[in-house]
Amino acid sequence: MTAKANRLQHVEEYYFSHKLREVRQLIAEGKPVINIGIGSPDLDPPLSVSRAMQTTLEQLNVHGYQSYQGVPELRQSMADFYSKYYGVTANSVDEILPLMGSKEGIMHVSMAFVNAGDKVLIPNPGYPTYSSVTNLLEAEPVFYDLKEDNNWFPDLEALSRTDLSNVKLMWVNYPHMPTGYKPTKQLFEELVAFAKAHDIIVVNDNPYSFILNENPMSILSVEGAKEVALELNSLSKTFNMAGWRVGMVLGSAENIKSVLQVKSNMDSGMFYGIQQGAIAALQSDESWFSNLNTIYEKRRELAWKIADVLGCTYNKDSAGLFVWAKLPEGQTAEAVADELLYNHHVFLTPGTVFGSNGEGYIRLSLCVKEEVLQQVLTRIIKY
Amino acid sequence: MTAKANRLQHVEEYYFSHKLREVRQLIAEGKPVINIGIGSPDLDPPLSVSRAMQTTLEQLNVHGYQSYQGVPELRQSMADFYSKYYGVTANSVDEILPLMGSKEGIMHVSMAFVNAGDKVLIPNPGYPTYSSVTNLLEAEPVFYDLKEDNNWFPDLEALSRTDLSNVKLMWVNYPHMPTGYKPTKQLFEELVAFAKAHDIIVVNDNPYSFILNENPMSILSVEGAKEVALELNSLSKTFNMAGWRVGMVLGSAENIKSVLQVKSNMDSGMFYGIQQGAIAALQSDESWFSNLNTIYEKRRELAWKIADVLGCTYNKDSAGLFVWAKLPEGQTAEAVADELLYNHHVFLTPGTVFGSNGEGYIRLSLCVKEEVLQQVLTRIIKY
Repeated sequence: MTAKANRLQHVEEYYFSHKLREVRQLIAEGKPVINIGIGSPDLDPPLSVSRAMQTTLEQLNVHGYQSYQGVPELRQSMADFYSKYYGVTANSVDEILPLMGSKEGIMHVSMAFVNAGDKVLIPNPGYPTYSSVTNLLEAEPVFYDLKEDNNWFPDLEALSRTDLSNVKLMWVNYPHMPTGYKPTKQLFEELVAFAKAHDIIVVNDNPYSFILNENPMSILSVEGAKEVALELNSLSKTFNMAGWRVGMVLGSAENIKSVLQVKSNMDSGMFYGIQQGAIAALQSDESWFSNLNTIYEKRRELAWKIADVLGCTYNKDSAGLFVWAKLPEGQTAEAVADELLYNHHVFLTPGTVFGSNGEGYIRLSLCVKEEVLQQVLTRIIKY
Repeated sequence: MTAKANRLQHVEEYYFSHKLREVRQLIAEGKPVINIGIGSPDLDPPLSVSRAMQTTLEQLNVHGYQSYQGVPELRQSMADFYSKYYGVTANSVDEILPLMGSKEGIMHVSMAFVNAGDKVLIPNPGYPTYSSVTNLLEAEPVFYDLKEDNNWFPDLEALSRTDLSNVKLMWVNYPHMPTGYKPTKQLFEELVAFAKAHDIIVVNDNPYSFILNENPMSILSVEGAKEVALELNSLSKTFNMAGWRVGMVLGSAENIKSVLQVKSNMDSGMFYGIQQGAIAALQSDESWFSNLNTIYEKRRELAWKIADVLGCTYNKDSAGLFVWAKLPEGQTAEAVADELLYNHHVFLTPGTVFGSNGEGYIRLSLCVKEEVLQQVLTRIIKY
């Protein structure tokens, strides 16, 4: 048998993949497990989104191949959205590329800029896909520390004193997952300066900026950012369209062209009806966000109560779909998660899934209804 | 500026990409160009497909992330389809993986089995994506000759005498694009034996087997094929769903697992409504194929007439969406294509797009209505 490629030897099964199999197994055994571990929005998209798809399907010539770059109206809607909410001007012709979700963008961007053997700066804690994609390309993940006492921001001065030769790419993700910490303009300015100083491309993965956040911010709002920065964004959380697979990448025309060179050899354009749904979503008015966040605020109150029962501390000024809670001194994340899963039938995420700096923390998802969070409270009251 | 990755230096812009830009430019200048160059189905999918999507969108909980492997019903529909039409048994649990189109499968399969520096056998002529993906992974495309006097089949004896060390993967594509030649059971048997003898994985890319073909055939129908063979398939041509992006890969559980390891790190599962549309398509009854092929037969008659006017010869017993026509002795493909484009405003594909062995041939698409093909005839009558 031909062996599989070397790149697969570096890639482990995603934590959630095997843990969720265990959860399904427990459920199959009759255990009523409640899952507050996953950030998959349970709410519906704006009604206009499904309507746009349904209407489209009544039209002629909507089933064929689409352009790799999507229809001009989609890119224009994305440009308008960035202008309206982030104050960022991007040319819809060549500075924006629609993606089938921002996750595929992590691979496309990495393939466009990273050679095997190159180094890639990756946040610890952070979204595990940054390192798995880096490993798949046989590049070297270099984890940089994020710590609570620095607001989960990178210590760029300390990083500057390390050997950064061969570093091609730096992943950042603000508002940050899993901690929910929000960026500041100063952080983005320092990141852009850092990238310029060390000839690195910095990519901000920005899918959470409309959830529990009054002030959405883009790294591209920093003057001169486009020279060195790219931003990934997504409709998954902002419009509850995770299953639809719509994302985007923005940056300089030159960098976007490199990403397009990869993408056009890997897939085809997005289904026309999905593009129309995305356009409808992007044109939602601002009440969409306030209504959505009203729901998440109520859920967060309950998640905080759960964290209180568990003796945790947490930052109340956080964004995104999660509550990131610090366990009492001496408790370890996986032990607490396992105790809750096996003895209370509540599945939540140990912080270590996101890297060693997640030790001592747990992550609670807000993607479940209030009743369910209430139920969790009842279950753990005797914790 | 950080340079783009080395892999992009091997990848040229897709021929169609710049040629279609030229076509659009001509149209913008007022030239009424007719495009019979592209294999993008213009007909609609079964009505049940759009209905399934529309119905789904009225349901609850249909907008969230989907499993990488798709819903079990989708994999079961694919298994049933393979059993009914190809006589191939595949376990829907672990021998079938739904893809967002078979094109992404070319990348996923390559990433799963090919290291940088490895060799990959690629047909000349053939679909250009096999070599661009190989180049993107910094592996080495080794083109094998297909010639008309051998029915556009590979000369496996001659290939066996070449140095095949380091060859990991072999792409085949029967029914063959661009020539339309159909496979034989013997060909598939010889390919499987060749792959076993040389420890190569052979992948049959099989999207055309229901178009103008009474006898769909899968390489997996060869006994013991799964050990060394994978097959890609797609709903794009079979059900006119090119824009929907639904494909699949079938093979041994072990090989499918390797492909899934790549895929799960690159994207998420397919939109639920698309999966439901795909299930509806796969459950179409056989009249779907006969009705579809009745339309293509009429178009092919006209395409043959066009080829006649151009003095070409062609094989009438071919499958797929194209007529592959041999130019009169001494004419070159690009010269004829350019003459037709600039002086008759007809865009068709020079065979050289698919490799050097396409010299002396042109490819005419059947993805245009009869009236349009009639119009082409009128235009070239004075050719």
